[in-house]
Parts: sequence; structure tokens; C-alpha cells
Amino acid sequence: MDPVAREAYLAALDDGWADADRLYREGRRARMLLDAAREAVAEVLGARPDETVFTTSGTAAIHLAVAAMTKGRSRTGRRIVTSAVEHSAVLHAAAFTAAQLGGGHTTVPVTRSGELRMDAFAEALATGDTALACVQYANHEVGTLQPIEQAWELCTKSAESPTPSLTSSPASLQSPESPIRPISPIPLLVDASAALGRIAPPQRWSALIGSARKWGGPAGVGVLAVRKGTRFAAAWPEDERERGRAPGPVNVPAVLAAAAALRAREAERETVAAHHRDLVARIRAEVARTVPDVEIVGHPDRRLPHIVTFSCLYASGEALLTALDRAGYSVSSGSSCTASTLTPSHVLEAMGVLSHGNVRISLPWRITSDDVDRFLADLPAIVAAVRAEAPSASNSSASPPLVSTPSASAKSMNFPSTADPVPTTSATDSTTIDALGLRCPIPVIRLAKQIDQVPIGATIRVLADDPAARLDIRAWSEMREHSYVGEEPVPERGESAVAYLVRREH
Amino acid sequence: MDPVAREAYLAALDDGWADADRLYREGRRARMLLDAAREAVAEVLGARPDETVFTTSGTAAIHLAVAAMTKGRSRTGRRIVTSAVEHSAVLHAAAFTAAQLGGGHTTVPVTRSGELRMDAFAEALATGDTALACVQYANHEVGTLQPIEQAWELCTKSAESPTPSLTSSPASLQSPESPIRPISPIPLLVDASAALGRIAPPQRWSALIGSARKWGGPAGVGVLAVRKGTRFAAAWPEDERERGRAPGPVNVPAVLAAAAALRAREAERETVAAHHRDLVARIRAEVARTVPDVEIVGHPDRRLPHIVTFSCLYASGEALLTALDRAGYSVSSGSSCTASTLTPSHVLEAMGVLSHGNVRISLPWRITSDDVDRFLADLPAIVAAVRAEAPSASNSSASPPLVSTPSASAKSMNFPSTADPVPTTSATDSTTIDALGLRCPIPVIRLAKQIDQVPIGATIRVLADDPAARLDIRAWSEMREHSYVGEEPVPERGESAVAYLVRREH
Repeated sequence: MDPVAREAYLAALDDGWADADRLYREGRRARMLLDAAREAVAEVLGARPDETVFTTSGTAAIHLAVAAMTKGRSRTGRRIVTSAVEHSAVLHAAAFTAAQLGGGHTTVPVTRSGELRMDAFAEALATGDTALACVQYANHEVGTLQPIEQAWELCTKSAESPTPSLTSSPASLQSPESPIRPISPIPLLVDASAALGRIAPPQRWSALIGSARKWGGPAGVGVLAVRKGTRFAAAWPEDERERGRAPGPVNVPAVLAAAAALRAREAERETVAAHHRDLVARIRAEVARTVPDVEIVGHPDRRLPHIVTFSCLYASGEALLTALDRAGYSVSSGSSCTASTLTPSHVLEAMGVLSHGNVRISLPWRITSDDVDRFLADLPAIVAAVRAEAPSASNSSASPPLVSTPSASAKSMNFPSTADPVPTTSATDSTTIDALGLRCPIPVIRLAKQIDQVPIGATIRVLADDPAARLDIRAWSEMREHSYVGEEPVPERGESAVAYLVRREH
Repeated sequence: MDPVAREAYLAALDDGWADADRLYREGRRARMLLDAAREAVAEVLGARPDETVFTTSGTAAIHLAVAAMTKGRSRTGRRIVTSAVEHSAVLHAAAFTAAQLGGGHTTVPVTRSGELRMDAFAEALATGDTALACVQYANHEVGTLQPIEQAWELCTKSAESPTPSLTSSPASLQSPESPIRPISPIPLLVDASAALGRIAPPQRWSALIGSARKWGGPAGVGVLAVRKGTRFAAAWPEDERERGRAPGPVNVPAVLAAAAALRAREAERETVAAHHRDLVARIRAEVARTVPDVEIVGHPDRRLPHIVTFSCLYASGEALLTALDRAGYSVSSGSSCTASTLTPSHVLEAMGVLSHGNVRISLPWRITSDDVDRFLADLPAIVAAVRAEAPSASNSSASPPLVSTPSASAKSMNFPSTADPVPTTSATDSTTIDALGLRCPIPVIRLAKQIDQVPIGATIRVLADDPAARLDIRAWSEMREHSYVGEEPVPERGESAVAYLVRREH
């Protein structure tokens, strides 16, 4: 927590501890402080205080807003359109709410750099039954900024009519001279959690969401701003707190600390962002230069200043995390082996980029150039060491039950021979790699090793049942400029067995 | 917040700030601290750590538990049975969830001292379609303990069969020798928020709820324990946090502080409770002795040690709060004039006790006998002064639009003449008091003044439209041993106009 927030929290424990709905003096004092905090936060968001409520977390704000905004529009439609790279809380809320109300949930694809595909977004909105669109302001895993202004334009221009095929609709879609419509016929919910305090807040939204812990405030505070005129129908047991928009008591000390932290962030935002941008640019350039077989992830320019993400081919994300942790660096990963679900990050998956060996760095507010220099100096050897180790060894400490391979290993692009020969079955124009029961990155390591053994134009079949293989084999093929042909089930080898087909191109 | 909790929170900001789901060392450290906190809290509750999850507030715990436990039993039934004096969050959650799932919500009446009527509770459970019963461990407004063991017995013995009229059901209800049934055929949700840290926790429950701020912990932490084997079907956008029982990130520093506070409370619980019991007994006795026309509210013995509540006839609750606040005492009230809804506390209403002039005292942990002595010395003059003031004057500062009476006033049982004569219309055996547009306690003050003017056996009609009059005229009649005859609408005087009939008995 930011020192300013900490100080504000401690002061509030003495001065703002009471229930702000009470009439005695401590309650009135808490109410006064809460009002001031609301004004401060609303001002940063570009919202009115009476549009701004506090929730118990960013997740809570998301759940409440998705449910209430969809319910509020359920006469018009019940479909929820989101980007495919929203925070999982948005995706869960959209799927849950749409199912509950009998609507659908459309996830709109993104480009390889993580930007919403506007053509697909427009198409999704045009179905005529859309109640709500959710587009994040910036991605929390790869830092890519979304084209919110364009998304807003599309939401504003989209026909509300449930019969978009009528002649009037295409005309109104294309003609900017058509009569002025009510603001945002399809309401746009913008999750700005990853961005608030880091870059200027978005201007165009029907509802805006933030999370205090992301801007250096305490855990336990979310913020939800809903533009006046936006339909909002509570979908939970209501009470009188926060204008009926967030149930339960307001955590006044934490809200005061959150407001103090946000103010502090805003005061130094430009300076810190410029510093972070320099550091991230250096990390992106240096990692690409000094670490072989690495993919730098996310948009090169339209990005958050403080997040940088890359994936190291032929390395396990968990092993990288562990090795970096040992060296004193706390990083995250979107690799499947670091998640209890065994599936890779849905963000990396939607972008179609490599998911294994993934490293995500979020720069702390007070990081120095020296910190970054040290990291950049240490990283190449750490990656090399992880690659040199058998993936089976690094995987064995993970909590989910794992099937490990005895000795598969890889070192950069130069593969040492393995103790057990790679099982292959030759056919006229294909070779099969049996990687069933093996977890990523092993299927990709085997594929990379094997592809030079088949003639150019031949197709390799990789049998795998690790869900991450679906993403990684395709992503690897694109990185290496081979052709990803497709996949097919292999029922005789089990329910989850899939054959992935890759054609050698060079 | 308790100093121990404050210290734990500050330590956790340095040591337990990270996301406990992260693999780097700060995340693992946070996970370790969180596990320890969970064990500590579970031990106090008499639960297993894997039965215990943390939520963002007591309200959140209530909302989640009511929804998930009802949904989990929806094949058996969808009715939710609660006491009428549950916390409003429970009542809201029960009404909302029952409506959403197409079930009903039965509120079981309580005695004048606030105890659940066990006959009515048994009857409510016997409908055969009950999914969930909710009974608080102790009331948060009047301190009355509920007979949880008896409620548990009834839940355990209640037939699950949807056809309770079959011959087998009454037999199984009455025969303790019938084959052992699965534990608690009707799950019992016990809200122990007002009691944890004050008295020994309840032993019998299917799910148990607490709120850290009530035991001296920080705001923003609720606890929900669900006994193994209890059906629990998430009714919200799910994630992996807290075993899928509470969505969103865990606020680790606040949870650590909550656990530290609960441990501290438990260590001194008996000592503090004994001290508080003495003080409350003194307050109850002294207030009854020194303040005329006062009703002490709540059960005399089966009660929380630290809460004491009384109502002062012919006084406005808001005026009392303001006057006490000015004298340095921060108290609450269940009177309608202190709530933005204009209805009196549903707890006082369910108990059928006077709601106006209500004062609720919750003893702070470190209160001294001297504090209580000073309060008891100050109180009689404060009540007398409030009674001497015109209620209209005290009401005029309230925020909702008010209709004020020019000069109605009362001083104890001795009413000074008012400037405007009380409008009455005489009939053979009745007198009508027109108190339309006047807020409590004025209708009761007029009734008290008028009743001696009619013959014994005559009936007075009080016309009123303040919802609090429904409760207060009846409660006053019972206190004064007159007969409350009933009520009837007076459509010619407006939609909300009601005539309350009281017969003079002495």
C-alpha cells in the first residue's frame, strides 16, 4: 500500500471508523469524510459524485455492474458482448448473467497484439439483442490499450432495433447525419482497473470500474461510476447503501485510504509513467536482444506504461517464476503450469501467442533504473538454466497431479539427445509425435526437435492432451513460419487426445 | 478497531500484502499467513479450516450463504424460513432469493422479549418445502439470545418429505426413536455477527456467519463457515477463491487483523462479559427507576452482555439521540424518525414494543463503571428536556420532508395544554383524534392526553398516517393496560389514513 494511503487509513481508524449512516457525531464525521473521498475519486474519474459508489472490491464492482446493467436493459436484449481479453471476473459475470437472464455471451476476438477487432465488435453489436458491451481500458496481463473511443462510437451508433436487417438500420449505422440518438444506445462498461493511476482515465463510458489495490490503495475497495441516465436494475438483495448500487456497509477507512492513494498517484502520474515507459521500452528491447527464442507480448506502443510481458520458448513458466523468485524478482505468469486450472491464460490464448515460458512484470511505483539493469543482466542466464533443466524436473513440484516425461529437455534451439527416443511413426508424408500425458512445453519441444527430420512440405502430427498444446503448437508454428494445418480428435487414444497438424515450410 | 488488530494490519501491510494465489515469495508468505488466520478463526467458531471462508463483509457472507444454501436445496424446496428479527441483510436476502427461485419467505414471529416463537417456527418448517432456516444467535438491536439449540432440534427433526400430511410424517416428527436421519434435514443458517467475541459461539448450525468489525476487527471482513456435507450451490459468477464460496480476492491484511482481534476478544471474553453484564444490569435497573414512562426492551436474562435498549414514551428518538450526542454519548435508535425509510425498526415492530423514543446502547470494550455512572446521572434530565420540547421542533431537522404539528408537546405523564386544541369529534361511545400528517410520538401523546377524557369502556379512534403509529398505539395500549381493539382504513381521508381503535379500561 502506498505510504499516503497507509497514513490516511490510520488517521481514519481514529477519525472515520464509525458507520456513516449513524446520527451521532462519529457517524456524521465518517459521512463527511466519505463524501470528501467520493468527490476526490469522482473528480479523477471524470464522474459526478452522485454517479460514483464504492464496492468491496473491483470484482464486486464488476459483478454488480454487469448484472444490473444487463437486467436494466433486459426488455431490449439480454446478450452481453465482451472482448475475449477482459479480466476473468468480467467474463465470468457476463457468462453467468447472460445464462441467468436467458441471453447469450459473445466474446469478441483480439489481434495478436491484444487489440479488440473492431469489425468483429461491430458485428457482435449488430445482432440487435445486445444489452451490454464490456471493453477493458487496458489489459491487465499484457498492457495493451483498447480502442475505447472507437468502441464507444460503435456502441453509440449501433441500432437498438431488434430487427437490424430492416432497411432503416444499415442507413442509420452509416449516416452520421441521422437524427441524434440517445447517448450510447448500447451501454459500454469500461473496466479501467489496470489503468487508473497509471494513465489518464477514459472519457467515454456508461459505467467505469476501478480497484483501489491496483492504484496503491488498500485491498477491499472497488469503485463503480455509472453515468446518469444509464439503466441500472439491482440484481441482488437490495439495501440503502451507496444509492442501492452496492449492498453492505461502506468500509470508510479503506475508502479514505483509497482516495488518498489515487490523489497521490494522479499528482505524479505523468512523471512516473514517463519513467516506466522508458524502463519498459528498455526491457522489451533488451530481452529480445539477449534472450534467444523469446516472444515479446502485447502492443508495442498502445500500452500501459508499467506492464511488460514476454514468453520464452521451450521453458516452463513455473520453473522461470521459481528461478526468478530465487534471484529476488517477483513476477507473474500466464502459463498453464502456474494456474490451478491447467489451462493457460485466456488472454494469451485469445491473442494466439505462445503461453508457455510466460513472464509478466508489473513495475512497482518506486522502481529504479538500477533495479531494471540488474534484472536485465540476470535474466539471460536464468532462462538458459531453466531451459537446460529437464522440464519434468521443474514440473514435479507443482501441486496438481502431473505426468512427467523422464528426460525430455531443450536448450535454446539446440536440442540435446534425450535418453528415451522420441516415439514416432513414419508414414508417407507425416510423422507422429506421441506427447500424450506430457505437459507444455514438452509437446512443443518435441515438435521443434522433430520438424527438421521431415522433408519440407511434410506434415507432423503431434498427439497431445494438455489443453495448452492447442495454443502453443499453433503459436510456435506461426513464430517459426511453419503452417499450422489444424487439429483432429484421436478418440482411440482417449477422450482428450488431439492430433495437431503442422506442415514444415522451410 | 482493536489495537491488536491495528498492529496486525500494519504488520500485514509489510508482510502479507501480496495476492495469496501468486507463486512468488510474497504470495506464498501471504498464503501462509492467510492459512494461519483461517485456522485461528475456524478454531474459535468450532469449525474446520476447510469449512471456513472469508468474505468482504458480514452482509456479503449473508447474501452468499442464503443464495447458495437455498439453491443447493432447490430440488427439495425453495421456501426460506427466518425469524422476524433477523438482521435486515438476512431478511432482504431471504425475500430476494425466495422470489428469484420461485419460493416463499416465511418470517416467524417473536415474543415481546424478542425470542423466536418455537411453535410458529415448527409450523413454518412443517410445510415440507423449506430449503433453509435462518435464525440469529443473538439480536443486534435488543440483545435477546435465540433458542438456537431448540431451533436446531426442530430443523433436524423436521420431515424433508414434501407431503407432511402423510401418516409417516407426524410419527417421525414426534418419535425420537425413529431411525437416525441425516444431519439437519433442513439446514440452519445462524447469523452470529452480534455475538462473536462477546459470548461463546453457538454449537449447532449448518452455516455460521460473523462480521469482523463487530468483534473489534477491521471493516471489510466477514466469515462464513459451512459444515461439511451441507449443500451449497454458488449463485453468482464463480471463481476459484475461497473454495468457490466467496468470489473476488481475499483482503489478506484485513483478514489477519480480524483473526488477531478475534483471538484477543476470546482471551478476555469471560472477564469482559461479566463486567458488561453488571453494567447492563445496572443500566436496566436504574433507567427503569429514574426515567418515568420508559420501557426496557429485550429479554431480561437471555441476552448479550453488552447491548441494552429502552424506549422513552412521548419522546422523539431523534431528539434523544441529538441531546445524548451533545452530552457526549453516541447511541443508536430503532425509532422511525432516525431512519430514512420512515418506518421503525423491524425488530421493535416484530416484538410489538414501543418504537418511539428508542435508545440503543452498545457498550465499548473498554468502558468503565464511571462512564456508566455518568450516563445514568445525565439521562433523566436529558429525557425530561426532550419531552418538554415540542416534538415538532425536534423533528424539523430530520432530512425527509416532514409535516410538523404547531405545538404538540408532552412532559412525562403530565401534559401541558397545547396552543391548538386537539381536534376531536364526539360520538356515542367514541372520540376521534385526528393525527393525520403528524409523526410519532405525537399521535401517542394525543391519545395519552385524551384517554382520560372519555368514559371507561369507551373507544377512542386515532386517525394517523405515520406507519410508526401502527406499532406505537398498540404498544402504548398494552403498556398502559388499555385494550387495543384494532384498525380500519379511512379511505375518505386518504390512501394511507388509518383509524386505530383503543378502549379505555381503567
